Amino acid sequence: MRIGVLTGGGDCPGLNAVIRAVTKSLLRQCGAEVIGIRNGFAGLMGEVPQTRPLDWDSVSGILMQGGTMLGTSNKANPLRDEATAEQAMAHARSLGLDALVAIGGDGTMAIAHGIAQRGLPIVGVPKTIDNDIVGCERSFGFDTAVATVTEAIERLQTTGQSHGRVMIVETMGRYAGWIALEAGLAGAADVILLPEIDYSVEAVAAVCRERERRGRHSLVCIGEGAKPRGGAMTVERRVADSPDPVRLGGVAHALREQLQPLLESEVRATVLGHVQRGGTPTPFDRVLATQFGNEAAQLVMAGQFNRMVTLQGERLASLPLAEVAHQSRQVPLDHPLLRTARQIGVSLGEG
Amino acid sequence: MRIGVLTGGGDCPGLNAVIRAVTKSLLRQCGAEVIGIRNGFAGLMGEVPQTRPLDWDSVSGILMQGGTMLGTSNKANPLRDEATAEQAMAHARSLGLDALVAIGGDGTMAIAHGIAQRGLPIVGVPKTIDNDIVGCERSFGFDTAVATVTEAIERLQTTGQSHGRVMIVETMGRYAGWIALEAGLAGAADVILLPEIDYSVEAVAAVCRERERRGRHSLVCIGEGAKPRGGAMTVERRVADSPDPVRLGGVAHALREQLQPLLESEVRATVLGHVQRGGTPTPFDRVLATQFGNEAAQLVMAGQFNRMVTLQGERLASLPLAEVAHQSRQVPLDHPLLRTARQIGVSLGEG
Amino acid sequence: MRIGVLTGGGDCPGLNAVIRAVTKSLLRQCGAEVIGIRNGFAGLMGEVPQTRPLDWDSVSGILMQGGTMLGTSNKANPLRDEATAEQAMAHARSLGLDALVAIGGDGTMAIAHGIAQRGLPIVGVPKTIDNDIVGCERSFGFDTAVATVTEAIERLQTTGQSHGRVMIVETMGRYAGWIALEAGLAGAADVILLPEIDYSVEAVAAVCRERERRGRHSLVCIGEGAKPRGGAMTVERRVADSPDPVRLGGVAHALREQLQPLLESEVRATVLGHVQRGGTPTPFDRVLATQFGNEAAQLVMAGQFNRMVTLQGERLASLPLAEVAHQSRQVPLDHPLLRTARQIGVSLGEG
Amino acid sequence: MRIGVLTGGGDCPGLNAVIRAVTKSLLRQCGAEVIGIRNGFAGLMGEVPQTRPLDWDSVSGILMQGGTMLGTSNKANPLRDEATAEQAMAHARSLGLDALVAIGGDGTMAIAHGIAQRGLPIVGVPKTIDNDIVGCERSFGFDTAVATVTEAIERLQTTGQSHGRVMIVETMGRYAGWIALEAGLAGAADVILLPEIDYSVEAVAAVCRERERRGRHSLVCIGEGAKPRGGAMTVERRVADSPDPVRLGGVAHALREQLQPLLESEVRATVLGHVQRGGTPTPFDRVLATQFGNEAAQLVMAGQFNRMVTLQGERLASLPLAEVAHQSRQVPLDHPLLRTARQIGVSLGEG
Repeated sequence: MRIGVLTGGGDCPGLNAVIRAVTKSLLRQCGAEVIGIRNGFAGLMGEVPQTRPLDWDSVSGILMQGGTMLGTSNKANPLRDEATAEQAMAHARSLGLDALVAIGGDGTMAIAHGIAQRGLPIVGVPKTIDNDIVGCERSFGFDTAVATVTEAIERLQTTGQSHGRVMIVETMGRYAGWIALEAGLAGAADVILLPEIDYSVEAVAAVCRERERRGRHSLVCIGEGAKPRGGAMTVERRVADSPDPVRLGGVAHALREQLQPLLESEVRATVLGHVQRGGTPTPFDRVLATQFGNEAAQLVMAGQFNRMVTLQGERLASLPLAEVAHQSRQVPLDHPLLRTARQIGVSLGEG
Repeated sequence: MRIGVLTGGGDCPGLNAVIRAVTKSLLRQCGAEVIGIRNGFAGLMGEVPQTRPLDWDSVSGILMQGGTMLGTSNKANPLRDEATAEQAMAHARSLGLDALVAIGGDGTMAIAHGIAQRGLPIVGVPKTIDNDIVGCERSFGFDTAVATVTEAIERLQTTGQSHGRVMIVETMGRYAGWIALEAGLAGAADVILLPEIDYSVEAVAAVCRERERRGRHSLVCIGEGAKPRGGAMTVERRVADSPDPVRLGGVAHALREQLQPLLESEVRATVLGHVQRGGTPTPFDRVLATQFGNEAAQLVMAGQFNRMVTLQGERLASLPLAEVAHQSRQVPLDHPLLRTARQIGVSLGEG
Repeated sequence: MRIGVLTGGGDCPGLNAVIRAVTKSLLRQCGAEVIGIRNGFAGLMGEVPQTRPLDWDSVSGILMQGGTMLGTSNKANPLRDEATAEQAMAHARSLGLDALVAIGGDGTMAIAHGIAQRGLPIVGVPKTIDNDIVGCERSFGFDTAVATVTEAIERLQTTGQSHGRVMIVETMGRYAGWIALEAGLAGAADVILLPEIDYSVEAVAAVCRERERRGRHSLVCIGEGAKPRGGAMTVERRVADSPDPVRLGGVAHALREQLQPLLESEVRATVLGHVQRGGTPTPFDRVLATQFGNEAAQLVMAGQFNRMVTLQGERLASLPLAEVAHQSRQVPLDHPLLRTARQIGVSLGEG
Repeated sequence: MRIGVLTGGGDCPGLNAVIRAVTKSLLRQCGAEVIGIRNGFAGLMGEVPQTRPLDWDSVSGILMQGGTMLGTSNKANPLRDEATAEQAMAHARSLGLDALVAIGGDGTMAIAHGIAQRGLPIVGVPKTIDNDIVGCERSFGFDTAVATVTEAIERLQTTGQSHGRVMIVETMGRYAGWIALEAGLAGAADVILLPEIDYSVEAVAAVCRERERRGRHSLVCIGEGAKPRGGAMTVERRVADSPDPVRLGGVAHALREQLQPLLESEVRATVLGHVQRGGTPTPFDRVLATQFGNEAAQLVMAGQFNRMVTLQGERLASLPLAEVAHQSRQVPLDHPLLRTARQIGVSLGEG
């Protein structure tokens, strides 16, 4: 048996742990040959496929390492036209692949689904620091991202307190607010703003003002997809002498512009950016990613294809790829963590 | 309403987070007065009760701090005799307590149950770094302990590799092997030995020898309650000129004595000890402990007493104190993590 | 004896350690009364002075805490006019201060010098994460800032490698490149750009292209004061519908705009921002700050006023305030670290 | 030119950073061939030499890694007899080595000196977490060890405080107390005991009792070479049924036996052990080790042999191997850090 493995989409802590577990499990249990495909689906798209064999030694020592030893791509789509798709399938045949384990996010799962329909058996392993996979309670990489953000918030808290400032910190999470929510709670944020709940600038200002009165600084944790009621203020970036303004990533900067006139304290914004995607995975994520990888190997060996590994409660399970493609799991408005936040006095920017 | 809060038993990361959430939630939602009892049940046992009022400011800034601001005791038992019990109840009455939130382990829950039967309404919050609470999938403090142990394993891995040694690291977990299991997996241990599975010294040696042959060092992670088949070898500590040998805590040292004669590599043992109980909680544990504390406050406000907060799947729930006292949750022999470990080639010391 | 203590200027890890050492040393050795002035010199500028007494207990447990328990201000200048200066001196007299320990940066030292000339004996303790104090080989806060930046670089390295990208990370250091230099070396940056050496965009691009050819990603670490030869490109930030563009902090963004057209790889920029100023100090900085604080107390007790504590080699010493005001210590162009960087193949952007 | 590199003696964070800098600097500046010798001097002692070539790629990515990619040995001595010495020299000749860079501690430097006298040009790079190299103000690995110990102390502080206990933590440092001194100061220890100052048990107990009276826990940091006045109490370890007691490493356990009868609080001892030697180096140590490695390469290229790299003040320098062999640098009794400790109220166990 010959099994391919690839990683697609953005970087995420735990990818190497999945690759290691898939490989060790297949090597040990059924003596399969494991072929790493390089740079995601791009590795099946050029003149010649880009691969590297994965044996026991090549995956030793990678559990702790961030990133992916196979490389990744977040643009390559072998289904973009018929010729490219045919070439990818031809590469898979020439490599003698009996199946492919595809580790990636939404986009990768959608491509995997299409590849499966063309006849290459697929097992998907979901990957996102955003924790927004449908049907999956907790995805690897999320715990690490929360830890990175929480540490940053702690640093900002000491500066906020020393200066009596309002500190705004922007986290990743375009469609779902999981990172902002958990890191905000773990970092003792006073206000947490999520894509799921349009916020009132005035409500945020009211919290900060009440704290100013008590001699306290404030910390606002905002997910990058959060919007004020009535529509987002845009902040543009413009290179001098260039006619083209570019939208600035930071909702934190926009919020700062809105809040500053309403407050006495200085308001400062920090956009954490790419640091949230990288680095060594937390122990929690290493264990979770190892389980995901091993489960993928079990599905391969059981011949259960065209499914994606998931975590339901504390149990690993799987769902048909068809059911999960192109969906995103937001924080439900009745989620216990939202209730907890409100009950202990954390504002969600609600009017 | 006047609510008491106390922490009992051994130190555990997240205790302050629970105290903070209980207090903020009660203050904010029902304007209760919250009274901290100092040093666990010992605070109700002396001539005068030892207390400190808990208001908003006194619990600000403690979320990140390890330990418990209220102090704890792991010996004080107000139920040891009738007179002491009567005195404790009298103290509770004189303080005007309408209910008591007791945060602690097995012993604390058993006492809480007895106190409840004498008429003081109780809500229990389980606490253990060992993760062995019956009816509770994940307890706060465990994730932090796993992180501390994993970091230590990583340090030992580099030394083991540099010297070609067999490194043994002993973790806490007298009755249950959760810490050794998860930290062992997260730290890429080659052998994981748990209280739940008596190990074969020969099986452990065989793994190390096979790795020696491949020029590889080995790392063995052993929970303090693990035993070899045929009974444990005892290692004693003796102070010179004293007639009394004392049992040495370390099963790691005993295993070292057993393994060394069977191997060419040097074998070194490290007992991690109390560092596993202390320090700032991980973000995961801060969020979990905050939820536990808030849930305890909700139970108090709903008048649902003599119950202990639990986590089932991802949902908070509660169980009657009577059902949970004096039990311990071991790693079930069919637990997916055990299966994962075996499938990726980690030895559990099985023959 | 009554001694005042204040912290001025931007946040810096180790301020609490200085406050603690000053206080403990004075209390223990001469039984002085120690008075904390709140919010820097602002605490001497209002209607009534803002103070809090500092005894043994109030400085216990603060060694590990980031920020300053006294608060700080980076705008308040009691010398801005004669009336304000007179009021500050009157407050100092009414508080009965025999001397003042002023912990802060350039600005604080300049004010301290002026205050000293008006008759209040001063001991200065220099503070900067930038390590650019004249006459002081290593200032506390710098090691922590380097550690924070290095950790961020490590995270960005894994993402850069996984995607084959060029990652740019911008550090603090407006006038001096110490942070970028040490964190760049510690984080294995391929290019380090400093305010002290104007860089050639083409030289930077050449390094990245050569690495592209070898299938390698690149990491560029740039201090915020670094400039390209021929003058800096400005990147502006503009709030929609507002007529006023604001200069965007990030030289990283400007460099990205310059580099991207010259390279095949994607280029990404990260501005670390305020996280570099906050958080718990490293052990190195705790020890250093403790020494600075204790030395300040010794100077007070020896009556050696109007001097600033310094570190020369491994020895504490002091310099007259008059000599250090309004100067900045850049990385000398013949510094051994620059030579080391070049010799191991790190580019400094030189043509 | 062909240059050998080896690492000898115990593990130490930063070894890989030295190997990387030596290699990159030699490759880049003079196109030398660099040959890694495996497992210290053992790699020159068997039938065939054990080596691996070191090129640019093989040392990429190792800066952050603990341990040594070349392996080490702390027993192999090629000078143990004439035949072995001759064989080692013959291996060096057969490998065509023009010089050897030997990275290691006391023992390695002594062997290096002997090898040099037999005609192989040597440059030594000192390595010790203990910081006790004569003529070298700060050695790499020390900062990391201090950070590891400080983190452990912090964890123990929270537990000590929660329980009102006396916590004893034993650090490495057989001959010199640098680690205990700096980590003790950074971790806010109340008592620091060093090999350089015989301690009075009664003086230690007095500090703890005074703190008990004020409701405070105590933390004692003790270097493994510290001794009480009047001679050390020995604690033995005895395997049941074995006639041979073994000396237990822990002076912490001995101190515990001595202190407990004098105190009301529970006393607990923790021996940190091998974790102090391993793990990723701190940024400080990465920079320092990089400088040491680069300086070694410069000495090789300048033909300055039979010298050891040192750090004097902030400047790299070198000393003749003959001057440094078999000496150890203790904490001088007039060292400023000892004075600082006493002045801020930290006890050194003096009567």
